[in-house]
Amino acid sequence: MTEYQPPLRDIRFLLDHITPIEELAKLEGYEHADADTVYGILEEFGRLMSEVWAPTNQVGDTEGTRLEGDAVVTPPGFVEAYRAYLEAGWGAVPFPEAYGGGGFPRLVGVVMQELLNSANMALAMAPLLTQGAIEALEHHGSEEQREVYLTKMISGEWTGTMNLTEPDAGSDVGALRTKAVRQDDGSYRITGQKIFITFGENDFTDNIIHLVLARTPDAPPGTKGISCFIVPKFLVNEDGSLGERNDVHVVSIEHKMGIKASPTCVLAYGDDGDGAVGYLIGEEHAGMRYMFTMMNNARLGVGVEGLALAERSYQQALAYAQERTQGYAPGAARGQKSLIIEHPDVRRMLLTMKAYTEAMRALCYKVAEQLDVAAHAPSEPDRTAAQEMVDLLIPLTKSFCTDVAETVTSIGIQVHGGMGYIEETGIAQHYRDAKITQIYEGTNGIQAMDLVGRKLPLRAGGVYQDQVRRMRSTIEELAGAGPELAVVHRELAGALDALEQATAWIMGKGMADPAEALSAATPYQRLFATTVAGWLLAVSALKAKALLDAGSGDADALAAKVVTGRFFAEQLLPQVHGLVAPVLAGKADLFALRPDQL
Amino acid sequence: MTEYQPPLRDIRFLLDHITPIEELAKLEGYEHADADTVYGILEEFGRLMSEVWAPTNQVGDTEGTRLEGDAVVTPPGFVEAYRAYLEAGWGAVPFPEAYGGGGFPRLVGVVMQELLNSANMALAMAPLLTQGAIEALEHHGSEEQREVYLTKMISGEWTGTMNLTEPDAGSDVGALRTKAVRQDDGSYRITGQKIFITFGENDFTDNIIHLVLARTPDAPPGTKGISCFIVPKFLVNEDGSLGERNDVHVVSIEHKMGIKASPTCVLAYGDDGDGAVGYLIGEEHAGMRYMFTMMNNARLGVGVEGLALAERSYQQALAYAQERTQGYAPGAARGQKSLIIEHPDVRRMLLTMKAYTEAMRALCYKVAEQLDVAAHAPSEPDRTAAQEMVDLLIPLTKSFCTDVAETVTSIGIQVHGGMGYIEETGIAQHYRDAKITQIYEGTNGIQAMDLVGRKLPLRAGGVYQDQVRRMRSTIEELAGAGPELAVVHRELAGALDALEQATAWIMGKGMADPAEALSAATPYQRLFATTVAGWLLAVSALKAKALLDAGSGDADALAAKVVTGRFFAEQLLPQVHGLVAPVLAGKADLFALRPDQL
Repeated sequence: MTEYQPPLRDIRFLLDHITPIEELAKLEGYEHADADTVYGILEEFGRLMSEVWAPTNQVGDTEGTRLEGDAVVTPPGFVEAYRAYLEAGWGAVPFPEAYGGGGFPRLVGVVMQELLNSANMALAMAPLLTQGAIEALEHHGSEEQREVYLTKMISGEWTGTMNLTEPDAGSDVGALRTKAVRQDDGSYRITGQKIFITFGENDFTDNIIHLVLARTPDAPPGTKGISCFIVPKFLVNEDGSLGERNDVHVVSIEHKMGIKASPTCVLAYGDDGDGAVGYLIGEEHAGMRYMFTMMNNARLGVGVEGLALAERSYQQALAYAQERTQGYAPGAARGQKSLIIEHPDVRRMLLTMKAYTEAMRALCYKVAEQLDVAAHAPSEPDRTAAQEMVDLLIPLTKSFCTDVAETVTSIGIQVHGGMGYIEETGIAQHYRDAKITQIYEGTNGIQAMDLVGRKLPLRAGGVYQDQVRRMRSTIEELAGAGPELAVVHRELAGALDALEQATAWIMGKGMADPAEALSAATPYQRLFATTVAGWLLAVSALKAKALLDAGSGDADALAAKVVTGRFFAEQLLPQVHGLVAPVLAGKADLFALRPDQL
Repeated sequence: MTEYQPPLRDIRFLLDHITPIEELAKLEGYEHADADTVYGILEEFGRLMSEVWAPTNQVGDTEGTRLEGDAVVTPPGFVEAYRAYLEAGWGAVPFPEAYGGGGFPRLVGVVMQELLNSANMALAMAPLLTQGAIEALEHHGSEEQREVYLTKMISGEWTGTMNLTEPDAGSDVGALRTKAVRQDDGSYRITGQKIFITFGENDFTDNIIHLVLARTPDAPPGTKGISCFIVPKFLVNEDGSLGERNDVHVVSIEHKMGIKASPTCVLAYGDDGDGAVGYLIGEEHAGMRYMFTMMNNARLGVGVEGLALAERSYQQALAYAQERTQGYAPGAARGQKSLIIEHPDVRRMLLTMKAYTEAMRALCYKVAEQLDVAAHAPSEPDRTAAQEMVDLLIPLTKSFCTDVAETVTSIGIQVHGGMGYIEETGIAQHYRDAKITQIYEGTNGIQAMDLVGRKLPLRAGGVYQDQVRRMRSTIEELAGAGPELAVVHRELAGALDALEQATAWIMGKGMADPAEALSAATPYQRLFATTVAGWLLAVSALKAKALLDAGSGDADALAAKVVTGRFFAEQLLPQVHGLVAPVLAGKADLFALRPDQL
């Protein structure tokens, strides 16, 4: 199996030119995040990922994590890999300095997320779920809660989990039934069972801070009656030392198709007595609102997982295609077997993987950059505009990066031929790992509902129009960019027309009848996302060409960027033309049959 | 997990109206294959599949097959399931009566293949690989070889295998190195190692007949030097009893992503002495030609595997969607949770699965019907025309059914949400099993090379033109079929235009430079296959509508067929419009970068 190398060349291209880190370093609080410092961090961090984390990925898949009593045992190398990450303090990089964080932009955090997930997605879920919990506490916890928990979670000494799902409350969080009863001392007693809790237990930290959604006895039904609680595995004494073991225990872990090293736990609260001790975050019944705060980041995080698996699969497929000989490619010398990379269809597969992966990266980094602008820009209108862009792009990013990760990791197997299907080759794991990303943190169908139901209507379509304006401006620029980018101009303009036609239908007929909009949502989401991806690669190609024309930078890499942009425009972007009719078809045929006729 | 039920309703629709069994029964040799007899067979056989075979599928995946010494141990229930199939004589149905077969049309055999693979694809590979070996012996074996081996293979008492692949000879069969040395008694001694041999060993038959490609000492290089040998596990005495153990042994079995119960063997020939005893089939150096005889059937068989997995996944997803409640669908009564089948996006997923699956079935059965016509039609021109249609449709059928099986089985997981990722749910297995079908029996990239390199040029494009004529005639019929099928008319006509445009490019620029055609082959193949699939569902919808108008048949089922045809036309067929530009793009961007720039 090939080792993983952080794709620093493409990362630097983006951080230099497309989502410039130097611009973010001008924002208040980010002054220390100059390019040199950031690249230094990424190189150092990248070494840990490729040298220590990446080699644990396949063994993690093979051995899996197992349950002993109510303790989990992670695969060989995981404890050491996590400790190395902890000791270097990497978890702290994108968090507030007030709690021991590095105060770096979220964009840097997202680049690190990519590397973590490429190196070992299953293990990466421990620190990344912790980041979600940190964020909830940072924004909604009391000062005391932040003092007690945040510093140790930011340092990585303690991990955090998110406890939402129950057997009958998956996508429909409002249906949850876990109970929380207030005690005289202000704490609560939590009873119930949660499922699908990632790293609900581990063997590499002293404590685990569970954030738990539950319902108080007098709570209104649905999402408006949900409160959010801190339930530490070990209660924390006044002096910060660990106290009593809390009544939360792993009952079982799931046997999954992928991410087998990440323990997906069923957690029981209060089985041994009158409830696990929990502490309310913020106010009662506001838990769902607090979750929404984190949702953009969590969904972006899942998109980054898709990107990361695609990148790792691509590296492995490329290495194989560069060393495996088979048959004779057109033009091969007689009797001279070809490397499979010389076969046109293998070349097509590799370029498809590369173009999709770079599109995903541009999309994820763009959203991360806008999250930073939304939080740190000096002017309120700038902050608002950035937040709006984030809100619009989040469902597109989550769904596109995860659907496309399935495609890319599938091609990764295909490049290997029969060897790809053999587990020891290591390429199938990425495909199995990727499938979960289309499902969790809101299935991609739910992302589509979010897009047409909540995001398109933002500011009466004004947020959407802003995005169209950005893309139109790139199209205008492409018109004057010469023959090399003519195909990009043609295809991006065609895609935007398709998007506009589909959007007009959704904003009209779709808004008049939600069933129409929801019926069209999935093809519309893919159409929109593919267009945005094409736009970002067009922006990249324009920039690369300008740099090439100016004789600046790595000519090989820049030329590749131009070709990738062209390839995406001509080979992948035209898919949008197959998605207009499905949008415009609306609900009629979907509901033309009774369920028993299916 | 849901039990599997043979989809007899759709099968009967096809066998009554689209690939009419009564028409095949008019051909010489098939007179006994009237519809009543065939439906009787399918019902009886279907019961065995749903009651005995289907329940072994998940346990087979969980337990897998293991090696003990050089013997394989199949999972619990496999021996009994195979024996029940053997004792009822099902394996004999589509084979010549002269050797104890049932003499039924291949179409019937293909329907049975579908049921076998839906019930348990891993186990089905044992009888289905045997069918391939039977066919080779039937056409190319000596009368004596047929007497000795064929009867017992047709009865299912002995299984057969196909031994092509070696570590450095996968897609490039001509590179194989296994040696065969002629002895004074006319037999050969075989030495070498073969990989990826499905059911190279089993624990449910007394003997295994390996068909082995090997090279004689004086053989020319490449595919022209390959000969084909019979290598029985046990030599067969004059009286038909089993004799000496031959020197062919399993060295190891692979650890695969799916079809885990099917032992994928490394077989060593002649490790213990001067070679395994083998008997030449036909003439030396003609082995590759004999393989080509079987190739159409083998590739159709893999397409049928894709169909079968899609069907099983669909049944399971549909059952889940009909019993799982979650959230509120548009129009749901207040406080009344909805079955997920009422959610527009779930409905879309189910209809997508259904439409694709029915398209695959129509495609596979159409090819099977044409194989029967090619073998049994009274007039030579009819036989030739049918064979030409088969030759053209085979790469389309193999690639489409297997690529689409990936999509359908992926959606099957998605319908289950988080539960889909848990192995106990049983839906992920179909997705893991499906992936191999895109790879073996010629990867789908190789199918595309076959399509543009060998099939399109047949009769200077005349075979292609015949297919276009068939589709155009359906489009004309659709034009007069009223508003209900207007969208089918519009979209099929649009798809055919796209196909014609793409074909013109391939036949022109593509034929002038093979690298151009090969660069365009994969998107062209998908474009072509999707159009043919849309055509067959249009033919089905036309027929269903005519029957409905005449008040004949099951109105619910016929109405569903019309809707499925419309859904495919409007939602899935438009994909072709995203595939024209990739075809016309040719080789330029694929080879714009050096391998080291990727």
